[in-house]
Amino acid sequence: MSAVVHATFAGGVEGAWAVERISPVVGQPLAAVARLSVTEGREAPSPGGAIWRLRAVTSNFRYTNETERAALADLQPDLGRPQATRAALIPIRKTAEWWALAQDRRREIFEERSRHIAIGLGYLPAIARRLYHARDLGEPFDFLTWFDYAPADAGLFEELVGRLRETEEWRYVEREVDIRLMRE
Amino acid sequence: MSAVVHATFAGGVEGAWAVERISPVVGQPLAAVARLSVTEGREAPSPGGAIWRLRAVTSNFRYTNETERAALADLQPDLGRPQATRAALIPIRKTAEWWALAQDRRREIFEERSRHIAIGLGYLPAIARRLYHARDLGEPFDFLTWFDYAPADAGLFEELVGRLRETEEWRYVEREVDIRLMRE
Repeated sequence: MSAVVHATFAGGVEGAWAVERISPVVGQPLAAVARLSVTEGREAPSPGGAIWRLRAVTSNFRYTNETERAALADLQPDLGRPQATRAALIPIRKTAEWWALAQDRRREIFEERSRHIAIGLGYLPAIARRLYHARDLGEPFDFLTWFDYAPADAGLFEELVGRLRETEEWRYVEREVDIRLMRE
Repeated sequence: MSAVVHATFAGGVEGAWAVERISPVVGQPLAAVARLSVTEGREAPSPGGAIWRLRAVTSNFRYTNETERAALADLQPDLGRPQATRAALIPIRKTAEWWALAQDRRREIFEERSRHIAIGLGYLPAIARRLYHARDLGEPFDFLTWFDYAPADAGLFEELVGRLRETEEWRYVEREVDIRLMRE
């Protein structure tokens, strides 16, 4: 997705998703909430009474090369398949050291050494994914990644996040929260 | 500069910079104003009565590789040198086609074919420069570039912008306004 679509993720007592658990992986946690709402659009109202609100945007590719873009376009399902009643929202902030690196240095760590895209491709089409950017918005996290999958693929999803967290790229993660969701 | 610093450029009747001229290069122009104010900080108040207001942020490198980063760090002066009493603010928006390209395709056009960074390096240290990003903020422009220079280097600056506008990269520019400024 290369268009800029604004989204707000609001944790509170309203929203289509029930929160199963919120686990701090590294750094400051997010407060426990019962439900999560996702609204799209820059001015779209998100529910009142939210305990926290995370704003982010879809944007252009930052590291993905043309070969990878084409492979993802072939394999990647849309979000919201009827059977995808499990979801995860994983907000991440990376260190100042990461952001000071030149583009080629970040790409080397991200893909040539950590295989971030290659690992994700291995879990398609079971695990659908959308990346949102938040750093330029002055938000507390740099990215939010949304995943959805069928209950039967929950084990695959654990394997995917476990593999990513062992990579060199993850040494530059200074805050990560793992929010697991379900809908009826 | 890799830190996220919010800035607001407000055109109106207040501000440290007198507007010499505002030229539409391609696409919709910006309204004529007498003065420009630049304020930093996400919540910093910018003058009331502005005719237009452009918000943007400094951010991480998007195309610059390590060799280029080091060359820029060696040669690039800070903004605001006492003799730099001329400035330009050039807001640009690129096409949807540009933004849909994979990262390596954009890098190839930007540097391997258009020599954007190499051309700019040739005008250092005379022409100081800072790039601001605005696309993820939902602003009407994708980037704002601020340049400052001494009056004696105004001809060099014309040459620099003229060369950039002839590149392949500029075929993807769908809106550009060229705002020239001076301070006493």
